[in-house]
Amino acid sequence: MEPVLVEVTRGDRVESYHRGAAIVLDAAGAIAFSAGEVDAPVYPRSAVKALLALPLVESGAADRLGLTEAEIALACSSHSGEEIHVAGATSMLRKAGRDATCLECGIQWPAGEAASRRLAASGATASALHNNCSGKHSGFICLACDQGTDPAGYVKPGHPTMREVIGALADMTGEKHDDSNRAIDGCSIPTHAIPLRSLARAFARFGSGQAMGPQREAAAKRIRAAVTANPMMVAGTGRFCTELMTGLGARVFGKSGAEGVYCASLPELGLGLAVKCDDGAGRAAQVVTAALIARLLKPEGAQAQLLGRLSRPVLKNWNGIAVGALRPAGALA
Amino acid sequence: MEPVLVEVTRGDRVESYHRGAAIVLDAAGAIAFSAGEVDAPVYPRSAVKALLALPLVESGAADRLGLTEAEIALACSSHSGEEIHVAGATSMLRKAGRDATCLECGIQWPAGEAASRRLAASGATASALHNNCSGKHSGFICLACDQGTDPAGYVKPGHPTMREVIGALADMTGEKHDDSNRAIDGCSIPTHAIPLRSLARAFARFGSGQAMGPQREAAAKRIRAAVTANPMMVAGTGRFCTELMTGLGARVFGKSGAEGVYCASLPELGLGLAVKCDDGAGRAAQVVTAALIARLLKPEGAQAQLLGRLSRPVLKNWNGIAVGALRPAGALA
Repeated sequence: MEPVLVEVTRGDRVESYHRGAAIVLDAAGAIAFSAGEVDAPVYPRSAVKALLALPLVESGAADRLGLTEAEIALACSSHSGEEIHVAGATSMLRKAGRDATCLECGIQWPAGEAASRRLAASGATASALHNNCSGKHSGFICLACDQGTDPAGYVKPGHPTMREVIGALADMTGEKHDDSNRAIDGCSIPTHAIPLRSLARAFARFGSGQAMGPQREAAAKRIRAAVTANPMMVAGTGRFCTELMTGLGARVFGKSGAEGVYCASLPELGLGLAVKCDDGAGRAAQVVTAALIARLLKPEGAQAQLLGRLSRPVLKNWNGIAVGALRPAGALA
Repeated sequence: MEPVLVEVTRGDRVESYHRGAAIVLDAAGAIAFSAGEVDAPVYPRSAVKALLALPLVESGAADRLGLTEAEIALACSSHSGEEIHVAGATSMLRKAGRDATCLECGIQWPAGEAASRRLAASGATASALHNNCSGKHSGFICLACDQGTDPAGYVKPGHPTMREVIGALADMTGEKHDDSNRAIDGCSIPTHAIPLRSLARAFARFGSGQAMGPQREAAAKRIRAAVTANPMMVAGTGRFCTELMTGLGARVFGKSGAEGVYCASLPELGLGLAVKCDDGAGRAAQVVTAALIARLLKPEGAQAQLLGRLSRPVLKNWNGIAVGALRPAGALA
């Protein structure tokens, strides 16, 4: 039975609440915080996109193709389908000598509501470039093309490029990634269920560079720097990941995953964090993450204010009236 | 501790799950199904809109103003902001001698994504008419104007019209509705926390006409008929409430509420149903509702197929691949 980690209030009552598990540890496995069942397998979904981008950078493909730091950040993104994201994915594909017809993520209207309305107002329609995963997929296509591999079918677990990126994930987490724990993600690539503890350890390593070779250490550092310098590229306007890294800069690398997952690195402390809410609620995973980061980093000034706002977001109604809030509960209160 | 009522699978594993409470009983309180804590107060939110519409009909205001059955259905709706909904609210306000400037629900882009994009593509912008509660608010304004009351401030608990509709809710549920259990809803009207058991009993009465005067009994019957004959008006294209009543007709009256609430009447059985998911997940409340209705009504043919689909919805990804499903669990499995 997972503990309550987040409460949703309305007026002076708790209207809803969220249970889940969370763990923070260092690359050696020493635990800084733990709540709930952290050894049950969970699908990390998009939370591991930065780890999947490691081969793109460590292989030298990103440099050979001339990807910018913003494009490397986009390769780690679940973006809102804003113009800047579409332009970035288009540019990445062009550098690979390809175009959007190679994308195998499926068509999605921009996840950002305002971006979706802007696209509709322009008279255009949605394409695979607007899919929130188009940056990650463009990164896979860049990697394949740089290696002389036909990208067709790159979403399948048996494709050489997918084998390589899944291999990096297996290395970083120390967990098997095979038929026995595989399912299909929203963008059609595999997602593998692994323990939350292993996810957190992978992010401790990703943030510290520990327990990996020098090429991967350099790639991890570069990806972190690219994302924290381009936080708009990894999510979008008003999004949690973007706000977190805009405010905290290189002190944190954070990435959401669908169904209530969040993973983060805190490089200065050598810690990795992984959260899974039982019910799949992203709003709760964000509150847990912000509360844990505030507790661990002990920020001051604007950074403290930001984490206060992200860990206790106020719920406003259509007239802008504050009607309730989310707040950390139980072991996080 | 609430039981698990719904599981969300991906591949061959449970990815997320939802806890909650549900109760089905008759107007005398005899229980047909119960799971979880059904005596703790919950905010019903929009699930009680049909009960709030009782004064509009039983007072004769709807008839004096010439509201159509579709407009009565719209008064009970959380609509998707489609053209048909905006036209209906506009017509209701015109019949009251008013216009959209009287609406106090706030501006919302259409909740239906396709409707929102159509509005943007037309070059127009969102108004209070697109707010998912504009039909309910138009009904309040119709009631006020018919009674010669200035509608200004009708969202406040002290306004005579709001006192009257909250009074109907208190009568139907048998629960106090005062400062002690009041909060503010998304559209700025009050919402009062009451036990799930009392909500279910109100819907048993609403569906059976039991334990109320003849005028209210007639009004309840007419509202049920109006909504079940116009299921598009109560929600919108592809929405659960609309699909449920399109397929089952007058066998069920069902209405969603925010934060995982669902209420329904099963007139032929004299039963009322109320569901609250702990985590506020609407997707889970729908699965619980569909599973309970299937168990109680024992439908055949197309109705059985519909409830099978609504109680075990398949999750498809952006390429249309079935990647998982929701399914009833625990006491509902």
